[in-house]
Amino acid sequence: MLAKPQIVNLPVYQPGKPIEEVKRELGLDEVIKLASNENPYGCSPQVRAAIEAEFAQISLYPDGSAAELTEVLAGHLGVNRDQIIFGCGSDEIIALITRAFFVPGDETIMAYQTFSVYKSNADIEGAISIEVPLRDGTHDLDAMRSEITDKTKIIWICNPNNPTGTIVSDNALTTFLDSVPEGVLVVLDEAYAEFVTDDTYTDGISLLSKYPNVIVLRTFSKIYGLASLRIGYGVGQPEIIQLINRVREPFNTTRIAQAAGKAAIADGEFIADCRAKNRNGIEYLYEQFDQLGLSYFPAHGNFILVDVQTSATNLFQELLQLGIIVRAGFSKYPNYIRVSVGTADQNAKFIAALKQVLNKKEAHV
Amino acid sequence: MLAKPQIVNLPVYQPGKPIEEVKRELGLDEVIKLASNENPYGCSPQVRAAIEAEFAQISLYPDGSAAELTEVLAGHLGVNRDQIIFGCGSDEIIALITRAFFVPGDETIMAYQTFSVYKSNADIEGAISIEVPLRDGTHDLDAMRSEITDKTKIIWICNPNNPTGTIVSDNALTTFLDSVPEGVLVVLDEAYAEFVTDDTYTDGISLLSKYPNVIVLRTFSKIYGLASLRIGYGVGQPEIIQLINRVREPFNTTRIAQAAGKAAIADGEFIADCRAKNRNGIEYLYEQFDQLGLSYFPAHGNFILVDVQTSATNLFQELLQLGIIVRAGFSKYPNYIRVSVGTADQNAKFIAALKQVLNKKEAHV
Repeated sequence: MLAKPQIVNLPVYQPGKPIEEVKRELGLDEVIKLASNENPYGCSPQVRAAIEAEFAQISLYPDGSAAELTEVLAGHLGVNRDQIIFGCGSDEIIALITRAFFVPGDETIMAYQTFSVYKSNADIEGAISIEVPLRDGTHDLDAMRSEITDKTKIIWICNPNNPTGTIVSDNALTTFLDSVPEGVLVVLDEAYAEFVTDDTYTDGISLLSKYPNVIVLRTFSKIYGLASLRIGYGVGQPEIIQLINRVREPFNTTRIAQAAGKAAIADGEFIADCRAKNRNGIEYLYEQFDQLGLSYFPAHGNFILVDVQTSATNLFQELLQLGIIVRAGFSKYPNYIRVSVGTADQNAKFIAALKQVLNKKEAHV
Repeated sequence: MLAKPQIVNLPVYQPGKPIEEVKRELGLDEVIKLASNENPYGCSPQVRAAIEAEFAQISLYPDGSAAELTEVLAGHLGVNRDQIIFGCGSDEIIALITRAFFVPGDETIMAYQTFSVYKSNADIEGAISIEVPLRDGTHDLDAMRSEITDKTKIIWICNPNNPTGTIVSDNALTTFLDSVPEGVLVVLDEAYAEFVTDDTYTDGISLLSKYPNVIVLRTFSKIYGLASLRIGYGVGQPEIIQLINRVREPFNTTRIAQAAGKAAIADGEFIADCRAKNRNGIEYLYEQFDQLGLSYFPAHGNFILVDVQTSATNLFQELLQLGIIVRAGFSKYPNYIRVSVGTADQNAKFIAALKQVLNKKEAHV
């Protein structure tokens, strides 16, 4: 069975262990997962009723065009309905963009290290990924600009960047966009945009009218707290959105996700509250890391990449034994862990566990 | 913005009108949708509780490997866990197969007319679709066999076939499979398998050990009544499933769909009941069509393709005015409508509306 040659050696996704399994295996009563940048406050309480209202229609196909959610979101963002496309998380929008645009041999530029899904999808389509090292954990837009050739089709900017949490400032971004040829697509992945409180951050939506080659990606998985329901979206010029729609399966989001999305958008108070609590959590973690003498990148999303000054994969295992799941294994940052910002209680328990592990480590030296 | 040349002229999916909109526009109190082969009896009553149990975890990512559902389904089907892959409906499995296997210039063989998603995905990947006309509404396997060349990569057999509802008999299928070169993938799309009561129908799962080049597609959208939740699956040899997994997004099914799927499999009684009621509905519709002098293809799924002896798109509009939504517009069958088997009440109302429209038509001649 001859598969596409470029996919044969792609890694298969290795899922993390579910919380319940970790509890059972390690005999722990409490396990705190700060590994996937989920919202520790759940989702808007209005979501549950919205889902229950869909129970009578479980056996019916969803509206493939998500017309109602599109209308609500268009109003919320201040764009037209034909500028929006929904996917099974923004992951799927990334896959659809690559499937619609890449032909083998195209070049695509992204940061190293950034969200891995850009490169994995480029690989599938036979496109060549040019990975430009971050500078101080931040997209090096000048270096990325210098990699543009006549084969460049898509540039990815993850803003805030996963896993570093850094942002590109508005000036740097617009200077960069001014210099990108109009035939090159720039994808601004703003999965964490709603957490940002920094004044120098530019919302990509506001750039769409000036830069028709920009697509903005957003998701309901992060601040909206709907990760389990798999829904995200892309926003761009209608012509681009329509091209991506040509490779979208007709029914790619569920009735429940569409209804939950509408309810989640309506509850702006919940979002503002989560943003404020997340910022408090970041300040607390900064303070604790400072006391421990650990450096970290400025965190603009709901996670921090912190230098633990030892093998992060070992430290990951030690934290796991104490019931704390974080993320390690970043190739450019082998001594860093990425920790999601939890509730105040979760953050305190993470810090206590981290101190315990680091103290033990010092004692061993 | 240069998209893949082959996608630029692909049609964008045109969604059907939601029932509520049809009601509003036409001022109707009741609208019966018999257009999408949904289960008119909904889903197992056990599904609701399974979904509610997931409410506490809405903000958490699903298990990307769907481990629990995989285990339940593997037991149910009598296959190993590594033989199963889940998707956002079996639609997504079709897309993933094409994305994993096709390179531009590959050939792929399918019936004309069959489920349109095979060809649309082949088009996206730059593969060449060889469409072999149905004979008496049934896959012409001899003719399909004669189209195999050394460029053939995938053959699609929709069994029961959508839109005709016909099946290929076990002898014809195994004779065909015996003749297919082992390097050619044969996809048996069995979305409607659970409705079949005909003794000559072979369950594709039972063929997997003898024919390692076969993939079987199934879905929870039809007899299981979970169309709104978007979950389907493929079953095949582990090596093939692993290749497809390489192009799957990590979190492509929701927590709710996984939980609902488990509950739905557990309720075998509901499925047996739906199968029996569906068969009664088919017998009723056969009888009514016979009385009206309308011919139809033997129906093995939960729908019938019936020759209305006039423009089906016109008849579609006339039925719509009476609050009945069916499916028309099949290019090979311009005078046929596809009607889903509803409840006894829905079927009777459909027949009453059909009689009214056909009588009016005769009066006009």
